[in-house]
Amino acid sequence: MTDTTLPNWNDTPTRQAILAFVAAVTDETSSHYVPPAERVAVFDNDGTLWCEKPLYAQLDLLLRKFAAQAEHDPVLREQQPWQAAYHKDYAWLGGAITRYYQGDDTDVKLVVEAVLALADGRAVEEVEAEAAAFVAHEQHLTLGRTYAAVVYQPMLELLRFLERHSFTCYIVSGSGREFLRGIAEALYAIPRDRVIGSTVAYAYELRDGVGTIVQKAELDVIDDGPNKPIQIWGVVGRRPILAAGNSNGDLAMLQYASGSALPTLRLLVLHDDDEREFAYTAGAEHALDAARTQSWTVISMRDDWRQVFPDIGG
Amino acid sequence: MTDTTLPNWNDTPTRQAILAFVAAVTDETSSHYVPPAERVAVFDNDGTLWCEKPLYAQLDLLLRKFAAQAEHDPVLREQQPWQAAYHKDYAWLGGAITRYYQGDDTDVKLVVEAVLALADGRAVEEVEAEAAAFVAHEQHLTLGRTYAAVVYQPMLELLRFLERHSFTCYIVSGSGREFLRGIAEALYAIPRDRVIGSTVAYAYELRDGVGTIVQKAELDVIDDGPNKPIQIWGVVGRRPILAAGNSNGDLAMLQYASGSALPTLRLLVLHDDDEREFAYTAGAEHALDAARTQSWTVISMRDDWRQVFPDIGG
Repeated sequence: MTDTTLPNWNDTPTRQAILAFVAAVTDETSSHYVPPAERVAVFDNDGTLWCEKPLYAQLDLLLRKFAAQAEHDPVLREQQPWQAAYHKDYAWLGGAITRYYQGDDTDVKLVVEAVLALADGRAVEEVEAEAAAFVAHEQHLTLGRTYAAVVYQPMLELLRFLERHSFTCYIVSGSGREFLRGIAEALYAIPRDRVIGSTVAYAYELRDGVGTIVQKAELDVIDDGPNKPIQIWGVVGRRPILAAGNSNGDLAMLQYASGSALPTLRLLVLHDDDEREFAYTAGAEHALDAARTQSWTVISMRDDWRQVFPDIGG
Repeated sequence: MTDTTLPNWNDTPTRQAILAFVAAVTDETSSHYVPPAERVAVFDNDGTLWCEKPLYAQLDLLLRKFAAQAEHDPVLREQQPWQAAYHKDYAWLGGAITRYYQGDDTDVKLVVEAVLALADGRAVEEVEAEAAAFVAHEQHLTLGRTYAAVVYQPMLELLRFLERHSFTCYIVSGSGREFLRGIAEALYAIPRDRVIGSTVAYAYELRDGVGTIVQKAELDVIDDGPNKPIQIWGVVGRRPILAAGNSNGDLAMLQYASGSALPTLRLLVLHDDDEREFAYTAGAEHALDAARTQSWTVISMRDDWRQVFPDIGG
């Protein structure tokens, strides 16, 4: 009998670790058994469930909006982040994120301020619809596919495999919650109440007599680092038994998963596949150290995945 | 055939409105049909699912802790809220809440500051465990029952009835989220990820090497008024089709439920039963006005409920 579980995972120790973990926690006769209600799995998004290079998808969307603003207002072309957006200076933007993870948030702050100005007064449904249309129709910058098609096929298989074993899977991402809710159902079949992300502050307003949730130009939570476990607690109210990430920003979330008496599986996606995706460890140094010292399971894209992206028609 | 649905609801227009609504939204041939994923119901807790007089249960718990502090520190006995707690001056405390709903938050602020000082540095699991023990063992101030036994039996029946019809029920309360999570499963069979409440700010700390969510002495969200729909959006990501409350603090939540194209049922519990519970409308004036002008369904405790509280063993 052919084993058709996780078909795009090579039969490596990584796949075997996943299968052994799920077998143990679902076996009522095992001392590692975990009741279904406690089978909570959390997944980072960018770089864990889909490609994050050369730019986060949400950042690409925002840059295109900045570029459009600069198109109409020459003064903006002299200021960051509009200057970089207008001239497609992705190096400046990629660098801003790398510098953020290295402790220097100067440039990220400029981006955040410009993002907040765009958010001001928008109904949450409008933000979602924009995200849905963007990933469905716009091309990834280098891979020759739409953003919707740069999801990792093996991770889709893992989500479904876990669900078949009564896990509840959540996305816990540094990207904006509304952006993610706009795409999570279509891309990952993850429902909107299982999406945790960064948030602005919100106002409740009557618009044409209808109570409406509106974004304000004020940051509330950046869902990264220690805020990931705090937000998981807020929405889920349980410690996960499986956590998957790929960067330093996921360190606290993976650490949090290991705090209970229950068995846990911590997965770290290693981007080591320059041919099919990208090869980089910048921004993941501490996570990789922790993986070594705390025996997390490292997923090598190159060695563990048969296919990276889904087949696309035509 | 005897209709055993909602057995502790008298056969009044209120019960009929509930039955008709659920029949319509679950009938696939009806133009009012609502798919299961969108059958979201939200319930206020204090005064809607259980008794809130003469004091909110969580406030009673906190007062007992203030009294214990004042017992050890005579200086505190001259300061509010410790003075009121020490002398069991519930009139001052009940008044503080009434004044808050009338727009004067001076005394509520004193209470909140003292509450935050108690919260500082506590692990969330500790707060939950304290709440669970309190409602299981401590007596309600006047009703001669534990707090666990002052839940409204008809509302328990409504929760189960809705769940049988594929509704997902959430509690959305001004009380603290950790307090509510500590009691919601035992009292209402509502799981912890369906509990929305007021929150302090949190820190993520390593305690004995274990990642731990800890309360900070800093208020984050008071889950009342416009914050109720904002938090429903945050956790659920959908507009409810059924909302139940009993006070002005629930007005925005009930209004939010009516904003979609889907059919909605808005329920307002009217405390008009001085014999079995309490009779009061203070703090509910605006909600009652809205119920009249927007055709919400008012639940008369006196007329609509056969029995208010659950039977308790001898």
